[in-house]
Amino acid sequence: MKRPFISLTSDFGVQSQGVGIMESVAREIAPEAQVVHLMHGLPDFDIRAAARTIETVLYLQIGCHVCVVDPGVGTSRRGIIIKTKRGDYLIGPDNGVLLPAAQMLGGAATVVNIENPRYMPQPVSPVFHGRDVFTPAAAHLANGVAIEEFGPEIAFDSLVAAPYREAVVGDRRIDAEVIHVNKYGSLHLNITHEQWDQLGLPLGQRVTLRFGDKEVLAPFIQTFGEVQQNQPLILKDDYGRVEVALNMGNFSKQQNIATGDRCTIIF
Amino acid sequence: MKRPFISLTSDFGVQSQGVGIMESVAREIAPEAQVVHLMHGLPDFDIRAAARTIETVLYLQIGCHVCVVDPGVGTSRRGIIIKTKRGDYLIGPDNGVLLPAAQMLGGAATVVNIENPRYMPQPVSPVFHGRDVFTPAAAHLANGVAIEEFGPEIAFDSLVAAPYREAVVGDRRIDAEVIHVNKYGSLHLNITHEQWDQLGLPLGQRVTLRFGDKEVLAPFIQTFGEVQQNQPLILKDDYGRVEVALNMGNFSKQQNIATGDRCTIIF
Amino acid sequence: MKRPFISLTSDFGVQSQGVGIMESVAREIAPEAQVVHLMHGLPDFDIRAAARTIETVLYLQIGCHVCVVDPGVGTSRRGIIIKTKRGDYLIGPDNGVLLPAAQMLGGAATVVNIENPRYMPQPVSPVFHGRDVFTPAAAHLANGVAIEEFGPEIAFDSLVAAPYREAVVGDRRIDAEVIHVNKYGSLHLNITHEQWDQLGLPLGQRVTLRFGDKEVLAPFIQTFGEVQQNQPLILKDDYGRVEVALNMGNFSKQQNIATGDRCTIIF
Repeated sequence: MKRPFISLTSDFGVQSQGVGIMESVAREIAPEAQVVHLMHGLPDFDIRAAARTIETVLYLQIGCHVCVVDPGVGTSRRGIIIKTKRGDYLIGPDNGVLLPAAQMLGGAATVVNIENPRYMPQPVSPVFHGRDVFTPAAAHLANGVAIEEFGPEIAFDSLVAAPYREAVVGDRRIDAEVIHVNKYGSLHLNITHEQWDQLGLPLGQRVTLRFGDKEVLAPFIQTFGEVQQNQPLILKDDYGRVEVALNMGNFSKQQNIATGDRCTIIF
Repeated sequence: MKRPFISLTSDFGVQSQGVGIMESVAREIAPEAQVVHLMHGLPDFDIRAAARTIETVLYLQIGCHVCVVDPGVGTSRRGIIIKTKRGDYLIGPDNGVLLPAAQMLGGAATVVNIENPRYMPQPVSPVFHGRDVFTPAAAHLANGVAIEEFGPEIAFDSLVAAPYREAVVGDRRIDAEVIHVNKYGSLHLNITHEQWDQLGLPLGQRVTLRFGDKEVLAPFIQTFGEVQQNQPLILKDDYGRVEVALNMGNFSKQQNIATGDRCTIIF
Repeated sequence: MKRPFISLTSDFGVQSQGVGIMESVAREIAPEAQVVHLMHGLPDFDIRAAARTIETVLYLQIGCHVCVVDPGVGTSRRGIIIKTKRGDYLIGPDNGVLLPAAQMLGGAATVVNIENPRYMPQPVSPVFHGRDVFTPAAAHLANGVAIEEFGPEIAFDSLVAAPYREAVVGDRRIDAEVIHVNKYGSLHLNITHEQWDQLGLPLGQRVTLRFGDKEVLAPFIQTFGEVQQNQPLILKDDYGRVEVALNMGNFSKQQNIATGDRCTIIF
């Protein structure tokens, strides 16, 4: 029989016991579940980068996915569970971080506000809902507790907006945004593979990348090694988006580009 | 049936195969155990920060907890197992790193010196007792081997002292010490929730934090978001201690405070 | 019954969802396997350091070991499986990264070129063979699929060369190379314990370490704490090689030595 699946993501890095403690909580409540750490090295409090990373649960097993990038913990911000059309549960704060993932997973089927104290240890820490609210909810969901048990259903429209929208395709241009800079310094843009494919650009075509008043010319290729070392390129990334990189170099540092910067692609 | 539980903690960071190798050793000896990495990003050789982190096994399942921050490895320093009154086993070097955790877990019931070569691979590396002594001991304990099997009992009083003591409560002041700076730059002090509660300070009261000749005024609140961004605050942390922080900022950098610094709180 | 064993190693650090996603892929295909992360903090694209780390699977359980340091991903470079004489499978790119490990594990018994699309999800990402080619291969091997199923056997001699060779022992000297600098700043050299033991140097003997025109005098000892803090030393490391370090200090920074530098030891 298939074991239930839980993933954990945060901005705790390697210097927080929170990572191991959330895993212990999950395993204690749901000893039969698989528990996988998706990524904990998110930049502190960076909801945009976190939202982009949580999108990639598309490449995980269908399961219960917890995201703890939560600068508003303990304030009146809500804690939510989104059931997606693919069958996943996304669990975390209502700060927009879960919405791009919900869209990637087919859209939201149900959203509830986590309120039921039965599924939280008492007392709940006002500063670590990852341990005391979100991970327990994921583990109880993994055990088969119904989403309705956790609290009242809430309207999708009432949720805090996503930290980014999809890129806008214009006439021979796309107006995009840098939604993540990975550890190699490559930029991931808010352009889906589907949007990109619809442009019909042939492999090898050069496009202009405009960042403010800087312009970089880069070929659309399939993989890094098709250009010389330290040369720019644009490709479909490994997680459903479009990526700008230098082969074996750091584009973000070379061009001084950060998450949140605009990028217009002209072709 | 409940599976035994093993946790691993070290200063190996992400750039050491030691983390994965200790997990492999634990799983080979005790294949039925849950093995969780509490945290490996401790500052190199920092026994104070390590002792603080190992305290947080209070929030893990009862189990066998290994700590490898061990600058004296291979010298005459002893390797020990402390059985706590909660029922945990703490395993690591006799350099003080395990003592605050023992106290948090109800006190030490038994301490033994790890000597029995039967529970170590041969030859034992003189530079990696984490792999060859401590993790095997944890895994054999998880399998049900009795603590007495590992070596002779030793007196608690003979152990190397803890790297910090508890804060001292005076007349409208507490003399405390920074025992950990977390990855967000927040300070954790050697004040327990119980000590703090006994002061009877109401939520919202401002206190003076004195670091040498610097003073910072901060309100006692429940969570970060109750003050404006980059404003200071003091709260009960998520692991049994008292924390000083900036909301979404880095207190340690702003005020140039490090682990080991003194902090007097005046109220 | 013994569970199959899979290890994962990469240069993804803590800031990549690739780590968790590879684990999910492995667990989905081989739910009964133990999956351990050996290390993901390798320097970007550093095949030499990666090869050294993959050598240390010698200290893991016999199993299927994936290495993803793969700057040539998606180009014509091959993906390979090496079956070792110890019984492990080493899976990764044909860029030399697996060869020192194969030697440490008794030598290569069989090598195949991974080609069979049956054991890959479709479509295969041209930029993440770790997820779509190597980890699935490891998991299917863990499930008992025969190595011949993955593709044609290829000659060991046709593989891309290892990034380093073994040190050369001369007359009262060894000409060695720094093959890894660990997170404490210690140097690991391409000298095996066996080579070192054959020199017959007594514990305590001082040797001269020559790096270009710099020379450092260091005693051959068993563990760090036998010299004063910040003093140099040379010892047999915990993973089959010889290590140069400062006790509780950073040799690499103090002497400005990096991976790839030559080190001649004179005695």
